[in-house]
Amino acid sequence: MNINSNFLNLYESYLFDTVSRRVKAFREKNPERDVISLSIGDVTQPLVPAVVRAMEKAVKEMGEKSTFRGYGPEATCYAYPELLRAIQRHYSLRGVSLKEGEIFVSDGAKSDLGNLSDLFSKENVVLFPDPVYPAYADVNIMAGRRILYADALPENNFLPMPDGRRADIVYLCSPNNPTGAAYDRAQLRKWVDYAKEVNAVIFYDAAYEGFLGEKFPHTIYEIEGAKECAIEICSFSKFAGFTGVRCGYTIVPLELKSGNVFLNALFRRRQTTRFNGVSYVTQMGAAAAYSEEGEAECRENLLVYRENAKRIAETLDELKIPYTGGKNAPYLWLKSPLKGSSWDFFDFLLERAAVVGTPGSGFGKCGEGYLRLTAFGSPERTEEACQRLKLVL
Amino acid sequence: MNINSNFLNLYESYLFDTVSRRVKAFREKNPERDVISLSIGDVTQPLVPAVVRAMEKAVKEMGEKSTFRGYGPEATCYAYPELLRAIQRHYSLRGVSLKEGEIFVSDGAKSDLGNLSDLFSKENVVLFPDPVYPAYADVNIMAGRRILYADALPENNFLPMPDGRRADIVYLCSPNNPTGAAYDRAQLRKWVDYAKEVNAVIFYDAAYEGFLGEKFPHTIYEIEGAKECAIEICSFSKFAGFTGVRCGYTIVPLELKSGNVFLNALFRRRQTTRFNGVSYVTQMGAAAAYSEEGEAECRENLLVYRENAKRIAETLDELKIPYTGGKNAPYLWLKSPLKGSSWDFFDFLLERAAVVGTPGSGFGKCGEGYLRLTAFGSPERTEEACQRLKLVL
Repeated sequence: MNINSNFLNLYESYLFDTVSRRVKAFREKNPERDVISLSIGDVTQPLVPAVVRAMEKAVKEMGEKSTFRGYGPEATCYAYPELLRAIQRHYSLRGVSLKEGEIFVSDGAKSDLGNLSDLFSKENVVLFPDPVYPAYADVNIMAGRRILYADALPENNFLPMPDGRRADIVYLCSPNNPTGAAYDRAQLRKWVDYAKEVNAVIFYDAAYEGFLGEKFPHTIYEIEGAKECAIEICSFSKFAGFTGVRCGYTIVPLELKSGNVFLNALFRRRQTTRFNGVSYVTQMGAAAAYSEEGEAECRENLLVYRENAKRIAETLDELKIPYTGGKNAPYLWLKSPLKGSSWDFFDFLLERAAVVGTPGSGFGKCGEGYLRLTAFGSPERTEEACQRLKLVL
Repeated sequence: MNINSNFLNLYESYLFDTVSRRVKAFREKNPERDVISLSIGDVTQPLVPAVVRAMEKAVKEMGEKSTFRGYGPEATCYAYPELLRAIQRHYSLRGVSLKEGEIFVSDGAKSDLGNLSDLFSKENVVLFPDPVYPAYADVNIMAGRRILYADALPENNFLPMPDGRRADIVYLCSPNNPTGAAYDRAQLRKWVDYAKEVNAVIFYDAAYEGFLGEKFPHTIYEIEGAKECAIEICSFSKFAGFTGVRCGYTIVPLELKSGNVFLNALFRRRQTTRFNGVSYVTQMGAAAAYSEEGEAECRENLLVYRENAKRIAETLDELKIPYTGGKNAPYLWLKSPLKGSSWDFFDFLLERAAVVGTPGSGFGKCGEGYLRLTAFGSPERTEEACQRLKLVL
């Protein structure tokens, strides 16, 4: 047999995999050092009470013959009505109406970003911001697609706009991972207009929408006409602390077409063939996270992370290190105050302060010289990390 | 944008999706009829006590700050040590030794059958039995690969063997879904020899191994040398009743190579990029299912299904309808006693007996004229279905 040779065009390992191996090696060499990770965007607040109660109830049901559940409902691609209604409710708060059949529940946004890629021709040209979440590039390198990068630089406030180049698939992430920059309504409007003009599809990654202030669009469907050109991918990971529970969803509008093919039917065909749904227990937890009570509790948790972001921002201000993000996003994107590369800065912070960031160059060439810090740590550890940064920088 | 045009070569919907739509339409037209499904292989026994306890404990841990878990461990592709050790133990009972790094935990065998496909060139030629689990064909049609079918017929006891044709990827499923036929050691030995000879990789689907008697190999690694040519895909769905919990795993041996590329590293790269692991709660449940206590409880549940299979077999014997399977498998594969197609027989049973089977033709051209019945119903409903079969056939 022969392998998919596109894999040979990838870096040997996925960015966060590389970071975690380097940290592991450091820990083994320095067992006495107390390492604080502000690297991978992993949450630290426990699941909220409404979610825990719903999951406990669901586990009990699975242990009783009369309430046991097997495969999820085929008709809705294995999603339970409770969760579909909760997602519809969440969107209705932003004035967006979703039909049941437009919502695909999955084990997470990362999986769906790859799953969606399967629907499209490998001849399609892909465009996304640089820097950005590295899975966008890796998934498309695996598929053998040509990639165009839209540079995110201080000059455009890290928010690249359409620049005349034609693409077939455009990935947008707002607030952006890693820069934390967020598109406003007028900017998203321009992207939607662009997509319609060149017949592109937008993959809109809304994984961090919970961090946006009120004036920003939280879903691309707040922009009129977006249902004709955009697929939205969202996640419970950050909003509800589900990084270890695994649940996300993807909206494929019923009217969205490529030529005369409805993408909703195509994604349904992909998912019923290559996927079998999300745990009933997880789905009940996710439904509770988007209930009125659960949402309120989850927003309390997000406040903790917002405070962390503020604390890191204050520290960088004190140190006179330029940065972006941290206000409408859980990420801070800072310029290395040292000479050398992102990985040099990563090593410096790891060795001198035992603080782990994510090297900006791992997110794209425009990320060189930058580092990403996350606000997802605990308040105590984040404070400790800030003190250490002040000592070494 | 353009779609992946291979999708246009698929039937409009996935087999079980079609069946469920037809049944839904029947129910809506005949609300007074009590429909019994012996169609999709979905379990009905609740989760066993050891699993429920482990999942309840895990949910509680997720609700406490000190025991909360985010992303699973990167080093093992997000699998927890408890589950990896439990899988190692399960294999050691068959005399097979697995290294931690050889085990990839996923949300189910169906997902992994697709995920594995991503690693290979679309030029590879694929071979699998006809009839077989329809996802094998659909996944490879989506990828644009050429498919060779090995006919499973009464003449070869529904167990096709290598016949001189060369393939790059060979799917085997033992006991087979849908026929219930199981390969013995000598037969599997021949497939392993064949794979090595023509440099093919075997995807060995062991989802139903729990139903096999002692004399059958339960894993392909019971065959010497199989680690050099076979990937094994297994699932907790049937063994532990996890169809609604979603957990499976794939073994990619460390020594398995395509040219000079190690497939283990390739799959790791795929999974770290396009997947983010399985719920901590689910993993703890799966680990409990493969504990000594959990295994014993799960095997009790399997006895219920075995009894169902026996009951259906007796009924078919009484009716003098030829069938295979049902002894080392949860499926019975029967020849329609009527004139006409599999779908005709499906319609006949649905309309006359309100019993749902799965049309054999949905599993491949050799399935035409056959129907698959499953033993996964409750004893009461299975008995009722048998009575109805006797009335109408």
